[in-house]
Amino acid sequence: MTRWEPNARGRLEQAAMELYNERGFESTTVAEIAERAGLTERTFFRYFVDKREVLFWGASALQELLVRNVEEAPGTLPPLGVIVWALQHAATDLFEERRDFARRRQAIISANDELQERELVKLAKLASALAEALRQRAVTGPAASLAAEAGIALFKVAFERWTADASKRTLSEIIRDCANDLVAVTAGTV
Amino acid sequence: MTRWEPNARGRLEQAAMELYNERGFESTTVAEIAERAGLTERTFFRYFVDKREVLFWGASALQELLVRNVEEAPGTLPPLGVIVWALQHAATDLFEERRDFARRRQAIISANDELQERELVKLAKLASALAEALRQRAVTGPAASLAAEAGIALFKVAFERWTADASKRTLSEIIRDCANDLVAVTAGTV
Repeated sequence: MTRWEPNARGRLEQAAMELYNERGFESTTVAEIAERAGLTERTFFRYFVDKREVLFWGASALQELLVRNVEEAPGTLPPLGVIVWALQHAATDLFEERRDFARRRQAIISANDELQERELVKLAKLASALAEALRQRAVTGPAASLAAEAGIALFKVAFERWTADASKRTLSEIIRDCANDLVAVTAGTV
Repeated sequence: MTRWEPNARGRLEQAAMELYNERGFESTTVAEIAERAGLTERTFFRYFVDKREVLFWGASALQELLVRNVEEAPGTLPPLGVIVWALQHAATDLFEERRDFARRRQAIISANDELQERELVKLAKLASALAEALRQRAVTGPAASLAAEAGIALFKVAFERWTADASKRTLSEIIRDCANDLVAVTAGTV
């Protein structure tokens, strides 16, 4: 018999983030997370494979959303424009409401090499998925990979600025500014 | 007493690459590498921390060369142009002669998740070092990070094409073509 716990995932996530900030990611155990959330370890493992997963369970949803956005982006946009459009819409739909969470998550990841590696792997997978989605839109040759990789590079820089930024600019606005900057640093290159 | 072995590093590297290709990276032991090279395990550990290091010991030399190239690039170039200039010169000085090695190395890394992660970490560190080198050239704000991250994204795509390419195009030429493609996919984005 399994007792149903209201919002167990959210409670576990909140407890984990508190503990990672207080004690560091490495020093925190699953038992402590479950206790802080008022739940059992068994419940924790119904939602997360391990304590790292608490920080990365949203990755597949993000990837699906970005790929769908690429499919739905206006046909008139150039390849990088498609990626920027997809990122801006995901920013509004997924991240804007969770800025405090994103900021705390970024601080935890920055403090741990293993988590940084996992984040890099996540971003590399996103770039591959976006390149494939561009190929489905008939972007051929290295253009698809280049637009996707450059787009994810832009997202990485924009996301770091957004979580570090004390101002009230939205992630979508920062992505747009970074796209402008990328075009500017690219102009006249070849 | 340590016996001096002529070209021990090169012999160990060659033996390791052969074994990684024949048996896979995971199944190969340091003892086997040393035996194939006709050297001792102790000699192996004088040159490499572990068997992974055989594939990554050149990373710091590459980073130093790229940073120096950024410092020496013509002052008239835009930020991404500086990075492309640095990459093209490193390609000619460091990689062109080692295409077969690069191709085998790429195949080994592609077959192993842990090695792919290490490669991503290496590229992320390169991007950070190049961004810092651009800031030393008075490139300010997110432009430095964007040019460096986009440049490394370009290098990743170009390098994969170079090792997969059956033609005789040089890495430097492929980098230039990818830079052209990046400008093309970027044009009209904002």
